[in-house]
Parts: sequence; C-alpha cells; structure tokens
Amino acid sequence: MNIILLSGGSGKRLWPLSNDIRSKQFIKVFKKEDGEYESMLQRMYKGIKEVNKDSNVTIATSSTQTSIIKNQLGENIDISIEPCRRDTFPAIALATAYLHDVKKISTDESVVVCPVDPYVESDYFKTLEKLYEVSNKGNFNLSLIGIKPTYPSEKYGYIIPEEKDKLSKVKTFKEKPNVETAKEYIKEGALWNAGVFAYKIGYVLDIAHKLIDFEDYYDLYDKYETLNKISFDYAVVEKEDQIQVLPFDGLWKDLGTWNTLTESMNERIMGKGVFDEKSKNSYIINELNVPVLGMGLEDIIVAASPDGILVSKKDESSYIKPYVENFKEQVRYAEKSWGTYKVINIEDESQTVLVTLNPGHSMKYHSHDNRDEVWTVVSGEGVSIIDDMEQIIRPGDVITIDAGCKHTVLATTQLKLVEVQIGKEITVEDKNVYKLTRK
Amino acid sequence: MNIILLSGGSGKRLWPLSNDIRSKQFIKVFKKEDGEYESMLQRMYKGIKEVNKDSNVTIATSSTQTSIIKNQLGENIDISIEPCRRDTFPAIALATAYLHDVKKISTDESVVVCPVDPYVESDYFKTLEKLYEVSNKGNFNLSLIGIKPTYPSEKYGYIIPEEKDKLSKVKTFKEKPNVETAKEYIKEGALWNAGVFAYKIGYVLDIAHKLIDFEDYYDLYDKYETLNKISFDYAVVEKEDQIQVLPFDGLWKDLGTWNTLTESMNERIMGKGVFDEKSKNSYIINELNVPVLGMGLEDIIVAASPDGILVSKKDESSYIKPYVENFKEQVRYAEKSWGTYKVINIEDESQTVLVTLNPGHSMKYHSHDNRDEVWTVVSGEGVSIIDDMEQIIRPGDVITIDAGCKHTVLATTQLKLVEVQIGKEITVEDKNVYKLTRK
Repeated sequence: MNIILLSGGSGKRLWPLSNDIRSKQFIKVFKKEDGEYESMLQRMYKGIKEVNKDSNVTIATSSTQTSIIKNQLGENIDISIEPCRRDTFPAIALATAYLHDVKKISTDESVVVCPVDPYVESDYFKTLEKLYEVSNKGNFNLSLIGIKPTYPSEKYGYIIPEEKDKLSKVKTFKEKPNVETAKEYIKEGALWNAGVFAYKIGYVLDIAHKLIDFEDYYDLYDKYETLNKISFDYAVVEKEDQIQVLPFDGLWKDLGTWNTLTESMNERIMGKGVFDEKSKNSYIINELNVPVLGMGLEDIIVAASPDGILVSKKDESSYIKPYVENFKEQVRYAEKSWGTYKVINIEDESQTVLVTLNPGHSMKYHSHDNRDEVWTVVSGEGVSIIDDMEQIIRPGDVITIDAGCKHTVLATTQLKLVEVQIGKEITVEDKNVYKLTRK
Repeated sequence: MNIILLSGGSGKRLWPLSNDIRSKQFIKVFKKEDGEYESMLQRMYKGIKEVNKDSNVTIATSSTQTSIIKNQLGENIDISIEPCRRDTFPAIALATAYLHDVKKISTDESVVVCPVDPYVESDYFKTLEKLYEVSNKGNFNLSLIGIKPTYPSEKYGYIIPEEKDKLSKVKTFKEKPNVETAKEYIKEGALWNAGVFAYKIGYVLDIAHKLIDFEDYYDLYDKYETLNKISFDYAVVEKEDQIQVLPFDGLWKDLGTWNTLTESMNERIMGKGVFDEKSKNSYIINELNVPVLGMGLEDIIVAASPDGILVSKKDESSYIKPYVENFKEQVRYAEKSWGTYKVINIEDESQTVLVTLNPGHSMKYHSHDNRDEVWTVVSGEGVSIIDDMEQIIRPGDVITIDAGCKHTVLATTQLKLVEVQIGKEITVEDKNVYKLTRK
C-alpha cells in the first residue's frame, strides 16, 4: 500500500504540551507495553507497518515539522515538505508528484491519503488496506472511507451512500448539519467524512496538470509559493461523479482537545503526580521533573510542561485556543531531528538551555551574530567542531563560543550539554548555517 | 519594647511554596503599595517598627532559618539561634539569656514573646506595646494577650479571665474544646490563647537557673543539646498563679493553610496567570516564569514553584501534609543570606543552578570533595576567589572549579551566574567551609 499521512495542525488546543512546533500528533501520551510513551504519529505509523510491513509511507507536512517527525520516526522516513501553506489541493498534488517523481511509483498505482491524528486501532489500518485494494481496481476515480456515526455529531461532514452498510457508490455529500438533520442522515445510512481517500496517482496528476503549469515534482516544489490556494474538495471531489465509499465501523476518535484526549489515555497520571482519595475523574499530564499534587479535584485536567501549566474543568478545555493565542512566551521545549532542546532559564540578556543529542546525530554547523555561548558537557561523549577545529568532548569539558564563531557537536553516545547564551538580543532567527566538510 | 519573635514551622502545609528551608512565614504573597511582595515575617517586623521604631526585636529560630531571615530583614537583625530543637522552655530561656547577656538588657525589663506567623494589622502591634507596659509594672509575673473569639473554634486553647472585656487576672486555662464547650467558654468571656506573653527577663532567667545548670547565654548555648525537652506551659504557666490577660479585639488570623492564606491575599493571581470568565473564587500563586491558565475552576487553588505544583479544592488544602511528606524531591529553591539559589535542571550526574548574589554579598568560601563546578556569569559584576586567586568577573566569563578547589564570589552589583555541577554524588552535605583572608 502507498499511503500519504497528512501532518498539519497548529498546536494551540493541547497547550502547554503542544506549541507552535509541537502539534498534537507529536505529544507522547500513549503508554506502550514497555512502559514508554508514544505519540499519535508513532502510533499511526506503527499500526500501518504492523498490518503490512511493506507499506510505503510518506508524510506530507510543513518544513517546521520535519525535525520532530525525524526525531519520532527516524532519519529515513520519507517526507514531502510543503514550502508554505497553499490549501489541500496543492499539498496533495505535491505529495502525489513526490511519490511519482522521487519515489518512482507508477501513475497506475493507487495511494491512500489520511490525516495522522485520529485515535484508531488495528481494524482501521486493515480498512485502509482494503480502501487501497478497491481503489486499485479502478472502477471509481475516488474511494473514501466513511466512519459509521456513533452519535448525531454536528462536528463532521456526512457522506450519503447509495446502498447502506457496504462498499457503495456515493449518492451525495452533506455539510456539517445540526443534530436533528444529522439524525435524519444517519437513518439514511450516512457516514462521517473522515478525510480519508484513495486515488490512482495518474488521476490526481492529470487534474494537477490541468490546473497548474508545472513539469514535475521539482518544478512544482520550486513554484509552490506562487500557486493559488484551492481546496481538494473544490478541485476534485465536487467535480467527480465516480466516487465510492467504504464503511468503517470500528474505533475512530478525534483527539483534538484535552477532554477527548484524556478519555483515550489508559491511566490517570502521566509523569510525576499524586491524587488524594477525594479526587475523581481527573488527570495529571506532567512533563516537568517535579511533582503535581491534586486534592479534592473533580473532572479536572492538569497539564504541565516547560511552556506552562493548564488547570481546566474537562468540559471547558475545548475553549482554550484564544487564551493560548494571547500568551507571548517563546517555545521552551522542542524536538529536533538530532534530539531535544529545553530552555531551563530565561534572564534579560541570557538564556540557559539543556541540549540533548541522540547517538550518531549532530546539530547543524552554525554561528550567531549577536550572542556568545558557553557549553558545559554534562553527560555522554562526542566531538565538538569550533571554527573547523575538532576536539573530543566528555563530561566536565567547557567550550566557549564567541559570536560569529562556527560550531556544532557530533554525539558519539547520547550527549547532554548545558548551553548558556549571553547577548542583548537572543532570538531563534539569529542563526547562520554552514556546510560542514570534515577532513 | 523588647520583643522576641518566634520563627519556627516545618513548611509542609503551604507546599510547594514552603519547604524544609522556607517555612510559611517567609513566603512572599502580600502585595505592598509599591507592587512588590512581602512575607509574613517582613509584614510583622515592619508593623512592629511602624508602631515604635525603637522596638528592640530579636528573632528566635533554628540555624536552618538564619539565612533566609537575614535575606528578608537584612544582615543586622538580631537572631538567637537554637542549636537544635528542645521544646519551648529551653528555646525561650535561651532567647531571654541572649537578651540579657548579649544585648545587655537588665533583668528588670520586660520582654514580649510572640509567634511570627499570624496575619495582623497595626492595632495588634499597639496591643503588644500595651502588653509590654502592663508587664513592666510588675504586678503580675506573666502577662498574656487573649484574642476575642470570632467563632467557637476547636483549634485554640481558651483563657478564662476573672473579669470580662478588660485587663484581668486569669481565672483558668482550658484545652482545645469541642464547639459546644467553646460556646459556653465564650459566654463566660473566654479568649483564645495566641501564644503571646510578656515577662520580666529576671523572672524567666530565675526559673531557668532552677531547672538547668548553666552560667550564662554562652554556656546555655554550648550545652543546649544536652537539655531535656520541656514546654514553657509545663515549666512556667502551669506553676504560676500571678497571670493577667489583656484582651485583643482586632484582626488576628492564623494563615497556616492555603485556604486561610488565600483569603488574606488582596488579589486572585500572583505571578503569571490567567483565569477564564467561568472561573470563580479560585487563586493562582505562581513563582515560575511560565503562565498558568485556569479554565472553569471553582474554589480551586493552584500554587506553583520550582519544587512542584499544587492543584487543590480550597477546603481540601488543609490535608496536604501527609502527601508532601511522601515527596522525596530535594528542595529546588532557597533564599540565602547572600541571595537566592534555584535548581533549574537535574540529571543523573549533574545539576544546574541559577545563583543570584545581592550587591555587596558573597557566599561562604568553600570547596566540594565530589563534584566539579563550572560558573558562567550571566549578569552583573564581582570578584571571584579561586584557591586564593582574585579575579574581576563580568557577563560571559567562565570559571571552572575542580573538586577540592576553594571558591567564592563577592558581588559588586547584583550578580547572576549559572552553576553546572558535575559529579557522581551531588549532595548539600558535600561542602567544606574555609575562612577567607583577603590580601
């Protein structure tokens, strides 16, 4: 199966664990059997590979998410990067061209496109495989999955099939209805539109060539910024008559708010935390290294990270967005392709960061114009490169890096260092990147 | 007026702002007119000095609290240090001997003894002055303040006076009663025993010499550890017939729990925090540098510090102690006589600390056996002394301190440095202190 996982999202609704560079699909809140935690992205990827280890997975995402995706899925994951946001049709066309021109997949093969963030189990992945198969047969240009509704939701669009409870031609699509209308749709056998669909690569490329003047993936990528914003629904779905829908009757949940997310956690406390005996139906999600104590709480969610602390009645947690948009604090925790970056102290003209490099990884070779840095290695081994001078580094070693000085570290084992930044203007934009050529 | 302020307390009930070295009286939660915050200790001291600037104040406390008291009241505050805990009679005898033998106050003068932690206003301090005066007259050996009860509390002992509503001889003392009994006491004119009393210095010293074999303050201090534990009530009050009580009818609150403390705060949010419109009667007390967001909260207290996070229904907050006793985490924030010490990161074999020195102050000249340290100066100016070598230090300067190496910093301006500690065993006990002799 060829599959494109769409990874988007702004990360406001699950603050403080999500932020501008850590969308909800990257938060590690699902406990695995080994006691470690995994994210929705990791869960989805693992599920696809478990059903069919030969599945050909590509992640379609923006450049800001590539580091964290590589951190969570490994360096070798295929990523189709959108240079900027241009709505769903250009994004899907670009990823489809990537499959054809970079991964050399034939125009006659199908591809499944699916969002990365629903909470699902293995029957869902089997249904994706089945969707791929029915798309490959070629009887319909577009094949969708329809989720069997569990209640008359106002949150989803509905798909009305010609025949109930089986693979069927789509009769019509309906916009998000009110509850009464939703009830009527459901009587007719309507299904939720989960944004999961499959098509032959040639089908979408043909439409793309009609709408956009481009040669191939590389050309499309280069002119991406000049493209018009256009949705996949408008460009494809609304103009297509040959659409089929495959019903899915298993677990499918949208974990977009703390309220729905905590319902899917298999424990009440994640991280350091204690509830008293009077606390009921409450949750602690704690990424800090100090304890959270909950006393007499009912239906309360406590979420703590280096970015801040949320304490919310469960029902209210879905209204978080405008409050978080008002916070002007910088992001304090980031997963990078090479490890993690945690701001542990901020002063007026200095900032202290714990940098953790994964074994075999290195940060980009770079310099800053407006700040000096001091590194103190606290664990692990590696090699520092400062203005092209290499040096083996171990715990206790101190490296001073003046403004303008090129620097990086290559971690041999997992390596942690405390970085003290000193300067009048400390910004993430102050960074010059160089090509590293080692002797 | 001579006054001894008793500063004790273990600091569990106001966790995470209070801890083993920061008892409740040191937490800065009371907003002053200039927008800064002050502690109960600072509020009490200021109140005494406002009523009479010549008041002769001595703080009686344990050695663990001397640093924070000097930090909050200044280097010149008189402190009588208990070498260890030996119950109330030895503690009061020691402080009284300190007044006589160190501060050279005559045995014929009175002294008022009062706990440092009730929340009071200026009329209370005026009553302390009056207590001092009536004690000085010498008609009674012991003079107490009795608080006019506002409700039939089970939390306090009661004093029954011979005559209601005026300075009167005490008829009898009553242990903490149940509510019904308390109501009856109150009908008789009973007053709460607030643990505030006055006596002539010679009176307590005479009793002390009868019970303990000692020469003077210095001798008593040296043999303090060998003394029997004995309460002031048992040694003095129960054996004394000549006791008078002065009623006090003003504001007097015991702010021992988050519930009572927040009631006396004049704002709902201290530090970085936001409530949504649905939140009611809730409080944020946040010492961290990141925001707390409260949504849909009713009667909830959120308190956050580098030591941890408490989220508690107001009523439940008084039952916090056993939970906090189970936390084995080290203290992350401490006020020292020279400034503050904040642990900003803990790893297996390293720890990073933000050290802030007040202008003109220096830490003790010391060394560690089992850890190296790296200092990076992030703001301010001062002088470092490393193995007797002096050096002027400024932001960006790095000082490496190997295990065994003697070190200190003298701050010229306020000075902040990031200290990275590296070693297999990092403990507060690993500290050798030296006398500093500068050339």
